[in-house]
Amino acid sequence: MAGNVFGQMFRITTWGESHGRAVGVVVDGLPAGLPFSEADIQKELDRRRPGQSEVSTPRSEADSVEILSGIFEGKSTGTPISMLVWNSDARSSSYDAIKNTPRPGHADFTYIARYGIRDHRGGGRSSARETIGRVAGGALAKLLLSHYGIRIVGHVLELGGIRAKSLSFEEILENVERTPVRCADPEAAKKMLEKVSALRQEGDSAGGIVEVMVKGVPAGLGEPVFDRLDADLAKALMSIPAVKGFEIGAGFEAARMRGSEMNDSFLMEDGKVTCSSNNAGGILGGISSGLDIVCRVAVKPTPSISKLQQTVDLTTRENAEIAIKGRHDPTIPPRMVPVAEAMVALVFADHMLRSGFINPRTLLG
Amino acid sequence: MAGNVFGQMFRITTWGESHGRAVGVVVDGLPAGLPFSEADIQKELDRRRPGQSEVSTPRSEADSVEILSGIFEGKSTGTPISMLVWNSDARSSSYDAIKNTPRPGHADFTYIARYGIRDHRGGGRSSARETIGRVAGGALAKLLLSHYGIRIVGHVLELGGIRAKSLSFEEILENVERTPVRCADPEAAKKMLEKVSALRQEGDSAGGIVEVMVKGVPAGLGEPVFDRLDADLAKALMSIPAVKGFEIGAGFEAARMRGSEMNDSFLMEDGKVTCSSNNAGGILGGISSGLDIVCRVAVKPTPSISKLQQTVDLTTRENAEIAIKGRHDPTIPPRMVPVAEAMVALVFADHMLRSGFINPRTLLG
Amino acid sequence: MAGNVFGQMFRITTWGESHGRAVGVVVDGLPAGLPFSEADIQKELDRRRPGQSEVSTPRSEADSVEILSGIFEGKSTGTPISMLVWNSDARSSSYDAIKNTPRPGHADFTYIARYGIRDHRGGGRSSARETIGRVAGGALAKLLLSHYGIRIVGHVLELGGIRAKSLSFEEILENVERTPVRCADPEAAKKMLEKVSALRQEGDSAGGIVEVMVKGVPAGLGEPVFDRLDADLAKALMSIPAVKGFEIGAGFEAARMRGSEMNDSFLMEDGKVTCSSNNAGGILGGISSGLDIVCRVAVKPTPSISKLQQTVDLTTRENAEIAIKGRHDPTIPPRMVPVAEAMVALVFADHMLRSGFINPRTLLG
Amino acid sequence: MAGNVFGQMFRITTWGESHGRAVGVVVDGLPAGLPFSEADIQKELDRRRPGQSEVSTPRSEADSVEILSGIFEGKSTGTPISMLVWNSDARSSSYDAIKNTPRPGHADFTYIARYGIRDHRGGGRSSARETIGRVAGGALAKLLLSHYGIRIVGHVLELGGIRAKSLSFEEILENVERTPVRCADPEAAKKMLEKVSALRQEGDSAGGIVEVMVKGVPAGLGEPVFDRLDADLAKALMSIPAVKGFEIGAGFEAARMRGSEMNDSFLMEDGKVTCSSNNAGGILGGISSGLDIVCRVAVKPTPSISKLQQTVDLTTRENAEIAIKGRHDPTIPPRMVPVAEAMVALVFADHMLRSGFINPRTLLG
Repeated sequence: MAGNVFGQMFRITTWGESHGRAVGVVVDGLPAGLPFSEADIQKELDRRRPGQSEVSTPRSEADSVEILSGIFEGKSTGTPISMLVWNSDARSSSYDAIKNTPRPGHADFTYIARYGIRDHRGGGRSSARETIGRVAGGALAKLLLSHYGIRIVGHVLELGGIRAKSLSFEEILENVERTPVRCADPEAAKKMLEKVSALRQEGDSAGGIVEVMVKGVPAGLGEPVFDRLDADLAKALMSIPAVKGFEIGAGFEAARMRGSEMNDSFLMEDGKVTCSSNNAGGILGGISSGLDIVCRVAVKPTPSISKLQQTVDLTTRENAEIAIKGRHDPTIPPRMVPVAEAMVALVFADHMLRSGFINPRTLLG
Repeated sequence: MAGNVFGQMFRITTWGESHGRAVGVVVDGLPAGLPFSEADIQKELDRRRPGQSEVSTPRSEADSVEILSGIFEGKSTGTPISMLVWNSDARSSSYDAIKNTPRPGHADFTYIARYGIRDHRGGGRSSARETIGRVAGGALAKLLLSHYGIRIVGHVLELGGIRAKSLSFEEILENVERTPVRCADPEAAKKMLEKVSALRQEGDSAGGIVEVMVKGVPAGLGEPVFDRLDADLAKALMSIPAVKGFEIGAGFEAARMRGSEMNDSFLMEDGKVTCSSNNAGGILGGISSGLDIVCRVAVKPTPSISKLQQTVDLTTRENAEIAIKGRHDPTIPPRMVPVAEAMVALVFADHMLRSGFINPRTLLG
Repeated sequence: MAGNVFGQMFRITTWGESHGRAVGVVVDGLPAGLPFSEADIQKELDRRRPGQSEVSTPRSEADSVEILSGIFEGKSTGTPISMLVWNSDARSSSYDAIKNTPRPGHADFTYIARYGIRDHRGGGRSSARETIGRVAGGALAKLLLSHYGIRIVGHVLELGGIRAKSLSFEEILENVERTPVRCADPEAAKKMLEKVSALRQEGDSAGGIVEVMVKGVPAGLGEPVFDRLDADLAKALMSIPAVKGFEIGAGFEAARMRGSEMNDSFLMEDGKVTCSSNNAGGILGGISSGLDIVCRVAVKPTPSISKLQQTVDLTTRENAEIAIKGRHDPTIPPRMVPVAEAMVALVFADHMLRSGFINPRTLLG
Repeated sequence: MAGNVFGQMFRITTWGESHGRAVGVVVDGLPAGLPFSEADIQKELDRRRPGQSEVSTPRSEADSVEILSGIFEGKSTGTPISMLVWNSDARSSSYDAIKNTPRPGHADFTYIARYGIRDHRGGGRSSARETIGRVAGGALAKLLLSHYGIRIVGHVLELGGIRAKSLSFEEILENVERTPVRCADPEAAKKMLEKVSALRQEGDSAGGIVEVMVKGVPAGLGEPVFDRLDADLAKALMSIPAVKGFEIGAGFEAARMRGSEMNDSFLMEDGKVTCSSNNAGGILGGISSGLDIVCRVAVKPTPSISKLQQTVDLTTRENAEIAIKGRHDPTIPPRMVPVAEAMVALVFADHMLRSGFINPRTLLG
């Protein structure tokens, strides 16, 4: 509890605020014998960094990861792996003005309600920088899963109301990193960029939908009744800042379908049981069926906009106005893709260990 | 783990299959001194029973709860409360035929993949009967919360594509039990009943959306970053059979909004901080703001339809057909309302204890 | 938390007070496919019943177990197993007199401090009857472990100051049930019986030491640093009422040894690594070595004695006297043996699952 | 799980091996508003450092702690606190020789059995250096507890067979740091030093007993049945390297006492309920009584001795000999005192939060 620990057997503890000295993660439960290095982690961290494109805001943070424990001769030892990234480029002053006036859509107010004080420097632990620890931990999870044939890809399915066309796992994997919006449909990507640019001009922001797919999942993962695979995915993804909804397979569309339309028929194919459709999203009764896992999250528009907003002054207890200055991304979904993949990887690594598909002690002989 | 335990401080362990001897729950963590009786639990269990209306199927199960421990002179002792409901009306034979042919949309196939065998009698632990334990545990949670001014109401917001109009918490509380569809908008309720009736004739089924609201929540509940209040609500609700999506506040609509539309402005009202709108659904940064909690789940249509469906025969490893006989509800959302309320109550009871709003040991002096 | 749940992957939830309607346990995490029946559980429960011998007090409780879920065609389904034993032979009245005057050595006072009220009927949850749930759950754990060649035996090593001579695992297993004191050394057993008889006459009681040995344990069990195998054994055994100490291998004797005496030398034997001695008790660095596990608990004398004792009256806030009437065992260790074995079995079942030595989903194919 | 996380509400995750880059801890669950600084932590870390006295071996490790998160304007923020100590003075080479020949009494063999490989550099995670994280986390726990009037003191009660006389809490607190053996009885301390010196000459080592006392504990702490306060203390202390036994109050002596001797009589004193003796050690039925907590651990002699020992060669699978070189303390108990205090502090901080004696969110207003 206390909220900063995630997972049962593949367990991460994240720490660090945006304007503290560093942010990081401790990964506990990675079996011994997995080959890895800083490069594997850095690759994922680089994907989440701001300042990479027109859809994010330039900030010069190097975000270079250091591995402090749990590795010996290039392989995991089975003991905890501590990783950190030093903070720099602090610019505390941009945030000082808001200390007493909570920003609408942000967690300023609720953090003060909970803790009595709030590290107001840049959002503290409620800012996106705390996701560094998740992505670093998720990178290890991804690596572990790849040894078992499990692959994960995320992409932006919708942005500012513009929806990409339906594409296969391989097509998405192939194209997702080609554009800053991380949309694998080039036409939709182009429109998304225009939309975001327009909103940035207006000092406003856009929301969207991120989709994550997992291929190569064995049937039988998930622990009814409460630790169902989809329930754990929901919790993991809803824990990412700015997420307001989660759905799997047909999701909210299922609410409008008939049973005869929704049910995926079973059939034999190459001696294996599969389904003719995948409205279930790869999960039935909370347990994986062996088909691709397909899930989505609804991402709200960036709350930090430069337009004038109404708020209160907590010291005078009167209404007040606020205009947020500083550097802010006009849209979150493209940056969220690696974070969403990381959370999904963490859930799968945990379930694979818990269900006995991966030896918890060691990958060696 | 092992999936049948839910909660950290207000913790329930459910057990029992639909065609085993009984189903039940053990509630651990209820502080001492709470007055309660079988009647409090029975009231909630009666709401979930099938055979109550035109939207469900008559089955004569009494579902009478027995409290076996944890109570003394009408008050909780602070020790575990064990409650059970005996099974009757078994009708195993209706289900025998499907032992080798997994029903599409059901967990038959995935349960076999996980356990190697499957108690095929009526869905076993994947059937709706396992929700009895949740509702009984949730009834205690609701009672505890009521002592702290927290009230919960659920209702059917949408069914078979027909959506109710927007109503207030009090209007919903007032009207929800007046119709079998549990929709507080009489006009929409009427159309829903007609729709369901038609689908039943066709041997098909309908999905829908259940909404749950919570009033009286203090600000400051929720444990960033992973045990956020909305993340825990998502996990709790997604663990209910047939749920394919979860959203809070504006939910998936937020994906299509601008920041200036989505952000709820803060303002002072009667000396308290509140918001002019509630797109956040009562939660910001994973912590409650004090405003009403508003969340929804997408419910898929009942998978058990009488229409002919395609499946496989697991013994012959060939394609096969299946026509499900027996008694099945043509739609789930109305019956899910008390279950959804129960899960929400469990999450709030747990968080209220974890965050120190309720004394974990005793309610007495 | 809330204290009534034990274990991570092999998890039990116990419930019930001595004078409530029943006591029981829910076992979560037993893989599917284990053959078992009421008889397997009853066998262990019968060992813990009072009234079996001259060292315990006759009470006529049948303690017949009922299995309510989790079993199908004689095998575990992988879903939770709920078991209960109905209470009878209540005799509440014997205990009423003590409601306001806490019995020395008992938990009366501390329970009131914690819960504000106390179910004073027969010790409530602090009485030995709550161990029924543990023994039932432990019986399943024992059965599971036996399929992996792991055997557990407990015995009374010391009673009323009389110590048995050192015997092998097989000798103990052979003889332990032959005497009511559960001591495998016939001479020591005889003296123990005499000692206990004398103390009973005087209205006093005796303490002792229970030893538990485990054979067939694989090397590599235990999770440093905090969930070391010996740390988990300590917690499990110290949770049994009346236990005041735990030790493993040489235990407190090690405090007085030199390193050259304490260290167990390694040597090859039949191609396997073993040790020439076992002062470590089968655990090094918190991980099993493959040698027998040998641990002990110190059991305090029964607090319920008929001699006059000094206490306080909680209502008048003055000193008072108390003479405990009714039926009480003059010594606990013989009755504790099956409970201690059960707790050890639970720890090993849990660790075997967590460390991947047992498939958590199913024992089938 | 995975063993490196301890606690439920006051939760620490430790990481780091002796010869990795650093060792550290993440503390989750410390409420907001606690004033603290590096100095508070450094004070406790300095107590555990080797090279301080004649009873330890000189090694020049600075062990300077750095706080990387969770603090703002000198107070805790309620978010995780990450602390680390950089490793230096590595001297890997001293340990290379033993890679294939497990040292008797050490965890070399069992770690290889568990992980398949073993970071042989200086004991890796099985060495005493991993206790730095515990002591740092425990320092915060101690500080938090002091705000609630709870004080903890540990001392060496017995060393090399020499036992100190019985002293009060205040006498121990006053004198424990005056001698390198951390024994508050000056005469016994003198003999202990002589004993240790002699054993060091012989290339052998001595064991001992560490006692920890806690004063100011409220009545009502502890969660029967499984998370009893004494059971959690046992687990916490048994998790420290080299501990082979735990006892509370009269401990193993209780096994030899009569009930009339063991039971602590209740009496009124200054309007409060107390006891005339404390054989219970401050805990009855797993719940604190308000009296001092008194517990002890049995510490085995340092396994690293320079005398020649028998072992096996894991590559040739033949018997071999080993003579451990390098720098080793001839006795552990004096160095273990701050570690034992830290573990006890962690248990109490956790239970105080879980039982509602400390507000989990904030210490402010």
